Amino acid sequence: MGSIFGELFRISTFGESHGGGVGVVIDGCPPRLELSAQEIQKELDRRRPGQSKITTPRKETDTCQILSGVFQNQTTGTPITILVPNKDTRPQDYQDMAATYRPSHADATYDAKYGYRNWQGGGRSSARETIGRVAAGAIAKKILAQFANVEIVGYVKRIKDLEAVVDANTVTEEKVESNMVRCPHQECAQQMIDLIEQTRREKDSIGGVVECVARNVPKGLGEPVFDKLEADLAKAVMSLPASKGFEIGSGFSGTLLKGSEHNDPFYTDDNGNIRTRSNYSGGVQGGISNGENILLRAAFKPTSTIGQAQETVTSTGEATELSAKGRHDPCVLPRAVPMVEAMVALVLCDHLLRDRAQCHIFPETAGESTESNKF
Amino acid sequence: MGSIFGELFRISTFGESHGGGVGVVIDGCPPRLELSAQEIQKELDRRRPGQSKITTPRKETDTCQILSGVFQNQTTGTPITILVPNKDTRPQDYQDMAATYRPSHADATYDAKYGYRNWQGGGRSSARETIGRVAAGAIAKKILAQFANVEIVGYVKRIKDLEAVVDANTVTEEKVESNMVRCPHQECAQQMIDLIEQTRREKDSIGGVVECVARNVPKGLGEPVFDKLEADLAKAVMSLPASKGFEIGSGFSGTLLKGSEHNDPFYTDDNGNIRTRSNYSGGVQGGISNGENILLRAAFKPTSTIGQAQETVTSTGEATELSAKGRHDPCVLPRAVPMVEAMVALVLCDHLLRDRAQCHIFPETAGESTESNKF
Amino acid sequence: MGSIFGELFRISTFGESHGGGVGVVIDGCPPRLELSAQEIQKELDRRRPGQSKITTPRKETDTCQILSGVFQNQTTGTPITILVPNKDTRPQDYQDMAATYRPSHADATYDAKYGYRNWQGGGRSSARETIGRVAAGAIAKKILAQFANVEIVGYVKRIKDLEAVVDANTVTEEKVESNMVRCPHQECAQQMIDLIEQTRREKDSIGGVVECVARNVPKGLGEPVFDKLEADLAKAVMSLPASKGFEIGSGFSGTLLKGSEHNDPFYTDDNGNIRTRSNYSGGVQGGISNGENILLRAAFKPTSTIGQAQETVTSTGEATELSAKGRHDPCVLPRAVPMVEAMVALVLCDHLLRDRAQCHIFPETAGESTESNKF
Amino acid sequence: MGSIFGELFRISTFGESHGGGVGVVIDGCPPRLELSAQEIQKELDRRRPGQSKITTPRKETDTCQILSGVFQNQTTGTPITILVPNKDTRPQDYQDMAATYRPSHADATYDAKYGYRNWQGGGRSSARETIGRVAAGAIAKKILAQFANVEIVGYVKRIKDLEAVVDANTVTEEKVESNMVRCPHQECAQQMIDLIEQTRREKDSIGGVVECVARNVPKGLGEPVFDKLEADLAKAVMSLPASKGFEIGSGFSGTLLKGSEHNDPFYTDDNGNIRTRSNYSGGVQGGISNGENILLRAAFKPTSTIGQAQETVTSTGEATELSAKGRHDPCVLPRAVPMVEAMVALVLCDHLLRDRAQCHIFPETAGESTESNKF
Repeated sequence: MGSIFGELFRISTFGESHGGGVGVVIDGCPPRLELSAQEIQKELDRRRPGQSKITTPRKETDTCQILSGVFQNQTTGTPITILVPNKDTRPQDYQDMAATYRPSHADATYDAKYGYRNWQGGGRSSARETIGRVAAGAIAKKILAQFANVEIVGYVKRIKDLEAVVDANTVTEEKVESNMVRCPHQECAQQMIDLIEQTRREKDSIGGVVECVARNVPKGLGEPVFDKLEADLAKAVMSLPASKGFEIGSGFSGTLLKGSEHNDPFYTDDNGNIRTRSNYSGGVQGGISNGENILLRAAFKPTSTIGQAQETVTSTGEATELSAKGRHDPCVLPRAVPMVEAMVALVLCDHLLRDRAQCHIFPETAGESTESNKF
Repeated sequence: MGSIFGELFRISTFGESHGGGVGVVIDGCPPRLELSAQEIQKELDRRRPGQSKITTPRKETDTCQILSGVFQNQTTGTPITILVPNKDTRPQDYQDMAATYRPSHADATYDAKYGYRNWQGGGRSSARETIGRVAAGAIAKKILAQFANVEIVGYVKRIKDLEAVVDANTVTEEKVESNMVRCPHQECAQQMIDLIEQTRREKDSIGGVVECVARNVPKGLGEPVFDKLEADLAKAVMSLPASKGFEIGSGFSGTLLKGSEHNDPFYTDDNGNIRTRSNYSGGVQGGISNGENILLRAAFKPTSTIGQAQETVTSTGEATELSAKGRHDPCVLPRAVPMVEAMVALVLCDHLLRDRAQCHIFPETAGESTESNKF
Repeated sequence: MGSIFGELFRISTFGESHGGGVGVVIDGCPPRLELSAQEIQKELDRRRPGQSKITTPRKETDTCQILSGVFQNQTTGTPITILVPNKDTRPQDYQDMAATYRPSHADATYDAKYGYRNWQGGGRSSARETIGRVAAGAIAKKILAQFANVEIVGYVKRIKDLEAVVDANTVTEEKVESNMVRCPHQECAQQMIDLIEQTRREKDSIGGVVECVARNVPKGLGEPVFDKLEADLAKAVMSLPASKGFEIGSGFSGTLLKGSEHNDPFYTDDNGNIRTRSNYSGGVQGGISNGENILLRAAFKPTSTIGQAQETVTSTGEATELSAKGRHDPCVLPRAVPMVEAMVALVLCDHLLRDRAQCHIFPETAGESTESNKF
Repeated sequence: MGSIFGELFRISTFGESHGGGVGVVIDGCPPRLELSAQEIQKELDRRRPGQSKITTPRKETDTCQILSGVFQNQTTGTPITILVPNKDTRPQDYQDMAATYRPSHADATYDAKYGYRNWQGGGRSSARETIGRVAAGAIAKKILAQFANVEIVGYVKRIKDLEAVVDANTVTEEKVESNMVRCPHQECAQQMIDLIEQTRREKDSIGGVVECVARNVPKGLGEPVFDKLEADLAKAVMSLPASKGFEIGSGFSGTLLKGSEHNDPFYTDDNGNIRTRSNYSGGVQGGISNGENILLRAAFKPTSTIGQAQETVTSTGEATELSAKGRHDPCVLPRAVPMVEAMVALVLCDHLLRDRAQCHIFPETAGESTESNKF
C-alpha cells in the first residue's frame, strides 16, 4: 500500500510491465488549467523505451489517454486519470525468470513480501511503472510554470567516471535534449554515448549521477519538521528504480568544508531582494525554500539486468546461472532524467499547495513571499 | 503542517527551543509493551546537550515524563505522550538574532514562510525538536528488538576528512558509546576529538558522515512504489537538522562499478536461507528489505552557528555582521548518532506494522517470510 | 482532493458520467486472494441502471475490466485497477443543463467551488461514480468473508412512509434480491414498487431508508477516538449521493429511552462467549465492534431530478424554469442497497487491517479476540 | 491509531481520565493569529464537569496551558500544544470496575481490542478526552470567524421527549448560555432541567438531540466524493462519546417528502446572490457548502453510567451485578453542546484550508466564491 504520493496534489499510480496498462490517477489538481494529452505525451516520449540506440529496444509508443478529470481541454478539479495501454509485451522472454531470481532485482523480495508476483517483465517493479509519475509530473510542471515561471531542468551529470561540467544556473532543456544521453556538455555527452555502447557490447551495464535544478521556486515551500522540502525531495528521488543516493546543495562533499566556508552569506541585491552569495544550501534552509536555485543530485546504480551469466538461485533455493534475455537498457541514466524532473515537480507542486493552504489564508498572516520576492 | 511522521506508528512532535517544553505524541503503538520512562531517558541522555566537552554547554537534563498511554508500566494502545520541559533557557543570548538573520540557519526562511517566528534559540528549527524523535525512537527500537532482535547501531564514520574503517556487521553500541565522539574506531576517534576541539578554538565548525546499520531486519519490509524502504529512510534522515545527503548500500560510489561487479549474487546458505554474497544493495532490493544488513550513510554539514564574524542582513534587508553568542556544538555528529538511529527505528517499526497489515492477514496469503527466514 | 478513501485498504475512484469511463484503483489489497472480473461484475450488476422497470432506463452494461494488480486470477498485492468504460452517453440530453442549475443538485456548488464543471450527466457528481466503490466493495466483502465469514446484507427498510418489518438477524441476500425494490418483506415490497411506479407517472420522486446488517464481525474493530467504527461508517454512508442521515443501533429513537432501558446487559453464553442480551448499541461500544451484529440505517432523500417544472436560475443568476429530460430514477433506494453494502464492507475491511497492524503484531500483546471469540 | 483528525488543520489528542493530563497538538494552524490561553479556557469552561447542578460533580477546573506554537500571543505556524493536567482523580472509585464490565461502556471492547486497559475512570474512553477537541475547536472557531464571520451555534434541541422549537437562523450563543441545560427556549429548558434532576434522583439517565447551525459559511467547502462536507461532519459528530445518529438538513424526516416538495428552488436575491428559497439541503449540495446555513443534528444516547443495579459479567465472564459509584452526568447533552460545536468548527476549518489549497491557487482558476458571495 505504497502507491500513493503527495498530500494535496496526490497521485496514485497503477499497472505492471505486462497486462492491461499503466497509468495514474491525480487527485487535487487545481481546476481550470488548460490541459491536453499532447502536453503529457511530450514528457512520456522523453521517457519511453526505444527512443534511441542507447536505450532498450522494447517498442512502446506509450500513447496516453485522458480518461477523466478534463473537460473540453480544461481540468475540472476532479480526479484526472491517464492510461497508457501496454502493447509490445513479450511474456515469453521472461518465462525463465518465473522461477529464477535475477540478482539485485526485486524478484526475490516481492516473493518474500507478497508470496506471489507477476513475473512478466518485472511486473510492478518494472521501471514501466514510472510512466504514471512522468505523466503526473507533466501536469505539476505546468502548474509550477504558470504559478511562478518555475523551471525544472535535469541532466546527466556523470556516467560511471565521466563527469560533465554544467552550469546549473543557465542550463536549458533544449541543450539537454540535444543529444540522446541527455548531458548538456556536448563533448562529454559523446564520450558517455560511446561508453554506453561499449558496455552494451560487453553485455554489461553502468550507472551514474543525474543532477537537477529548479529555478524561480517561490520562497517558503517546505513543511518542517518532517516534511522539509529536502526530505520530501529525497523520498521522491529515492523511490525511483535503481536510485541509491541523494544529495542537496553541497551534499556529501560539503562535509569537507568548515562552517566559515560553507555558510551562505546574506546580502540585499539591487532589487531589494535578500539573497545568498553562495548556494551551498542548495536553495533550502531549515527545510524551506529560500528563493535560490534548488540543486540536487541522484545516484543511479548500474542496471541490474545484464547479458552476462551470473550466479543465482531459483525460487526454491537451488543454485543456478542466469543470463538475461529480455530487452533492457545498458544504462538507465538518459531515461532517468525525465523521471527525476517529474518527481521534483510533484514535490514542489504539492508543497506549493500546502504552503498556500496554511500560510496564505489570511493576507495579514501570510509570509511576505506572497507579495514580493523579498523575505 | 509537517510535524507528523509515519503511517501506522505515527508520531507528532511539538515544542521549541525556548518555551514550555518539547515532546511527542505517539499514535499506534502496540498495546501491552512494557515501558518505563527510564528506557526512554537512556536514549535522551545520548542526545542531550552538555554531555561532553565537545558538545554545546547548554545545561539540560532533558528529563522526560510520560503523560499518557502507559498504565502500570505497560502501553495501553492509546496515544503515548512524552514531555520534556525546557529548563536552561537564555532568551537574552538570542536577542541580537531577533532582528538579524543567521547565515545558513532557518531564520530567514521561517520569516519568509510564516511571516513570524519564535526567534529564541531558533524556536522550532532548533535541534532541540529532535528530543521527541529520539523518545519515540526508543520505543520503536524496543518493538523491533522484541519482534525480531533487530539491532540498530549508528556511529560517526567520518569527521571532515578523518574517516574510520568500521565493520558494520560486528560493530556494537558499547563500542560506539566508549568515547565521546561516538566513533567505534578508538584511534580515529581521538583524532576526531582533537579536531573538534581545535575547531572550537578557531570559532569554526565542521561536519561529517554518520553511518548506521540495522541487523536482523525481517524480509519483506517496504511498500513500493513510493514508500520503498530506502525512500522512507531517506526522507527520515533528510528531515534531521543539518543533513545534506543520504546513501544506501553502495550509494554514490556504486555508480563507479559495472553491473557485473555491483549485482549481489544469490546463494543458499547452510541453513537453507537464500542470501546474497555481497551487499551492494544495502539490504534493500526493489524497495523491500531482503534480510541482509541495512546499511546507510547521512552527510551532516558543518554547524551553521560559528563564533566568527559573518556577513549577513537584518530582517529588513540592511547589511550587518554577526558573531554567534549562543551556546552551540562545533560539530553535530556525536549527537546526531542517536537521532539517525531513532529515525531508522521509526521507519522500520512503521513498515513492520504496514507489512503485517497487508501481507500477513491470511496465513495462506502471507509471504513465506512469516514462517521462516527463507524467501 | 477527496476521492481517496481508507487508510490501509485504500481506494481511489475516478471518472464522470460521460467521458472515458469510471473506475477505481485499490492500494493495499492483501496478496494471493483469488479474484475474477465476474465476481466484481456480480455486484456491479446490482447497481447498474436499467436493471428493472423502476430504475433509470439508461442502458449501461457496466462491464468491468481488471487492468492491473491481478495475475492469473490472484491478487499480487499491488494496485488493482478496475475500469468500466462509459457507453450509452447522451450529452445532448444535458445541453439545457449546461447553463441552468438543477435544484438540489451539485451544479451550482461545483461551479462555486471549481469555477468550472463537466455538465454532461452531472459529471463527477453523478451517482455513476459509485461504480468504483461497488467494485472495490466486492473485493472487501470477499476478504471479510474469507477472514471470518462476515456477512453484509443491506435492504430497503422504508420507501417514503411504507416501512417493512425485517429481522436483521436472519435476513438473507437471496431474500433481498428476490424482488426489484430490494425489500425482503414481499408484501411490502410490492406496495413499494407500486408507489415508485405511481411516483414516476407523476413526474415526481421519493426517498426512504436503507438498513444494513453486518454479521460475524470480529470483536476489536474500530480506532478510537476519531476513527471509531461508527464514525467511519457514518462518513462512508454519508458520502453516498442523496444521503441525509445515519444511525447506528438504536439511533435517534434510542434517545427516547432511559439508560436503564437502553444499556445492553452482558452475559456469558453456553459457549463461554461474553455477549449482550439486547443490542441497542448496534454492535459497537466505545467505537469498537463487540461481536454483536452491526446494524445501521441511512436516509436517502427523494431524487433531485424530477420531470415536473421547477423554479431555478441560470449560471448567471437569471430566473428560469426547468423540467428534467435526462434519464433518471424516481427513487434511488433499490440501487442504493449495493452501494451501502459496499461502503460498509470497505470500512470493515480497512479496520480489520488496521486492527491487525496495531494489536496483533505480538501474540503476547494481542487482544484475545485473535484466538477466540471471547472478550 | 485513530487519535488524529483533519487533513490540513490536523489535531492529535492525547490523555486519559486519570493520569498526567489530557490535551491536543494542532499541526497546521495558520501563523500570526492572535491567541491566548483565556480564549481557549472560555470554551473549556463550557465543557468542564461540575459547572452546574445537572452535571457530574467531579471537580476539575480544566485549566489549560499552551506549551508550544504560540509566541508573544501570536501563533507561529508550528505545532500548538495545549495541556490540561488532571487534578481531582479518584481511582479508588473505579476499583470495582477494574474487573467488572460496565454495560454499554467501552470496558469490554477495549479489552477485546487491546488486551489491556487503563480502567481508572474509563481511561481513554472517558469523555474527558474531548478536552483536546474543545481546545482545538476554539482555535478553529476563531479562524472561521476571522475569515468570514462564520458563527457556529449549538444547542439542546431535545431531551428525551421534550423538544424545543428553535429558529436556527437567529439563535445566539448568549441565549444558549443563559441556562444550564443549553436550550435557548427558556420554558422548555426549565422542563428539561426538571426532568434531568428527577432522572438523577431515580439513579437513571436520559439522552436527546443536539442541533447545531453554522452561519456565513463560504460557498465551496467540501471535497467530493468521499470527503463531502456532510460526510466529514457526520464522522466528526459520530466520533463523540455517546452519539448514535447524525442528520443534515431534512435528515430522516426528509424521506417522507416528495422530490417536488424537498427540492430547494434557486432564486437571485436583491444583492444578486444566488440563494435557495428553502433549505432542506441543510446548506450542503453535492457535498459542497452552498452558502445557506449548515444545519445538523446529533443523537446522544442516555448516559451508560447509572446508579441502578445492572446485570453484567466480570472480565473473566462470571455473572455479577454492578451499581455505578463514580461521579457521572445523568444526561450528557448540556456538556455535549460545546463538543458538537468544536467538531463542526474543526471540520469547517480543515475544509476551508483544503478548498483554498486546491481551488484558489490561481486567480484565474478559482471559483467565483473568492471574489464575491455569488455562485
